[in-house]
Amino acid sequence: MKQELRAVEWTGNGLSLIDQTALPHELRRVAVRDVDALVDAIVRLVVRGAPAIGAAGAYGVAVALLEGERRGWGRTELDAAVERVRDARPTAVNLAVCVDRVAPLVDRGLDAVLAEAHAIVGEDLRANHDMAVHGADWLVERVAVGRPLRLLTHCNTGALATAGWGTALGVVRELHRRGLVEVVHADETRPLLQGARLTAWELAHEGIPHYVQADGAAAATILRGEVDAAVVGADRIAANGDTANKIGTVGVALACAYAGVPFMVAAPTTTVDLDTASGADIPIEMRDGAEVLQWAGVRTAPAGSRGHNPAFDVTPGTLVSALVTERGVLEVAAGRLPGDHLR
Amino acid sequence: MKQELRAVEWTGNGLSLIDQTALPHELRRVAVRDVDALVDAIVRLVVRGAPAIGAAGAYGVAVALLEGERRGWGRTELDAAVERVRDARPTAVNLAVCVDRVAPLVDRGLDAVLAEAHAIVGEDLRANHDMAVHGADWLVERVAVGRPLRLLTHCNTGALATAGWGTALGVVRELHRRGLVEVVHADETRPLLQGARLTAWELAHEGIPHYVQADGAAAATILRGEVDAAVVGADRIAANGDTANKIGTVGVALACAYAGVPFMVAAPTTTVDLDTASGADIPIEMRDGAEVLQWAGVRTAPAGSRGHNPAFDVTPGTLVSALVTERGVLEVAAGRLPGDHLR
Repeated sequence: MKQELRAVEWTGNGLSLIDQTALPHELRRVAVRDVDALVDAIVRLVVRGAPAIGAAGAYGVAVALLEGERRGWGRTELDAAVERVRDARPTAVNLAVCVDRVAPLVDRGLDAVLAEAHAIVGEDLRANHDMAVHGADWLVERVAVGRPLRLLTHCNTGALATAGWGTALGVVRELHRRGLVEVVHADETRPLLQGARLTAWELAHEGIPHYVQADGAAAATILRGEVDAAVVGADRIAANGDTANKIGTVGVALACAYAGVPFMVAAPTTTVDLDTASGADIPIEMRDGAEVLQWAGVRTAPAGSRGHNPAFDVTPGTLVSALVTERGVLEVAAGRLPGDHLR
Repeated sequence: MKQELRAVEWTGNGLSLIDQTALPHELRRVAVRDVDALVDAIVRLVVRGAPAIGAAGAYGVAVALLEGERRGWGRTELDAAVERVRDARPTAVNLAVCVDRVAPLVDRGLDAVLAEAHAIVGEDLRANHDMAVHGADWLVERVAVGRPLRLLTHCNTGALATAGWGTALGVVRELHRRGLVEVVHADETRPLLQGARLTAWELAHEGIPHYVQADGAAAATILRGEVDAAVVGADRIAANGDTANKIGTVGVALACAYAGVPFMVAAPTTTVDLDTASGADIPIEMRDGAEVLQWAGVRTAPAGSRGHNPAFDVTPGTLVSALVTERGVLEVAAGRLPGDHLR
């Protein structure tokens, strides 16, 4: 078995991140020793994926603690630094949740902080493996086509996006482990191409047959009967089951609903935010319009054009056939709510 | 008023095409003097858009005739050359229809061939202006928000895609002429970015406020209530109203249907093919997968990945709120069929 990728690793005196902006061309790591560098890495998507930025945020408290010791910060400065990590991106609830879980331990010192961060990573990894089994079981039972499945996924939800293994891509990997994947359609996921660059790279790494396709091809691929199920991740899940995920996800969900194809969301329970009543209450990160006006340094649109660049969209819970967490499967479209899973 | 763009022009001894692969960076024309060059231009999308390739095909018969005279072709060679033009791309019906309309005139000489090709161009231009008025009238009446409209379009359907003026973008231009456009959301239209490169360029040229957005953002923009109507073109319309258009279109239609936003298809009656019963009978061009694996010469996916690259998708007629042709507006989703318009 190949060595599992670890997008976020503590190295003893700092954080080591796989630089996801360099993939698929180069697998390189960057060392993060101060809060500025961490916030920059989160904002520039060197590290991305809700659970992975949660892990980076948890270790970020340790980064802040060590930087504070070097620089002689008082409590106010330390708190402000932790707050900057917490607020580096707004949509995924995991970042704030993980930082808030670790931050109260700063008074107990670095070892206590690190122990909690390691626990978060361990729990995420365990949750990924558990949800992979639940999701794979559900798909095998519900799709029941008597042959390996043709799946569609959007953005990247694999080892790179998590503490390891993956959420939606973890379900795919579990199905592949059972010999039950015929092909995966990976949406390229513009503007930053996490699907083409990262998901395809992970699928190639795992030897899973796949196609990369334009995001605009997702609905047609589903409507033409070429997809047995779509499996995606989530950045935040509201109490009513509305789900924020990478821009383009709701289009996949609408096509699945129209075609009668299961639409599965795989995410740890830490992604569920019962304090958020519905999708309308989820803050959607608006990123720089320039990201959709160029690629690889080549301008694609005329100089006078503006870009509209929401990073996430909201899929109504009524379109979510199955929400898979480490605790099992909730059929949200059939009326089960995420809170049923947490109580 | 600015000079109208002419993507396809006869120059007296050959065809002149705006090289649409060079936009938005450079507005340059290429001269086409033989059939090889014309087929290459159609296949590489130097000229694209169903009505524009129809016009290029009509003039292509003249190109073949002149090349045949230079090379001493017999009738068999001339017919084969015309056939190559006719079959250069499969999905849009306009190319075959236009070639078939001009080809029978080759026995009557170049002037007769050119007269028919000019007539096709003149009719297309007239049809564009007429459908623009019909489409704008319908939107003003049906959307009736009491302020300029926020529109969404996909791919390029403007002057570049037609003999001039445009189909869906012609409707937008007519609304803008009336002072009734607040903003246009232009989907970038991967993999070849006709929206970012061509539509945004035309909108900038006309001074129409617009955003470029990732294709994956279309559904969210519609569901968030930021779009009053979507207006797209068509490459072929089947007898039951099913409509082939650039890949990504059906996703826009599904979002419009879900959100209760009008979804308008604007196309000349020459795009309607009553010999095609339904969308299932429309041949969908599969283009080289490499187009979705790279951008601007930079590979976006790993070496081992394959691309899945259908150039078009089919929108069920039941999702088409309004089909606008030069003859008026047909509410297809409400049960009117394209044939009602042709008889």
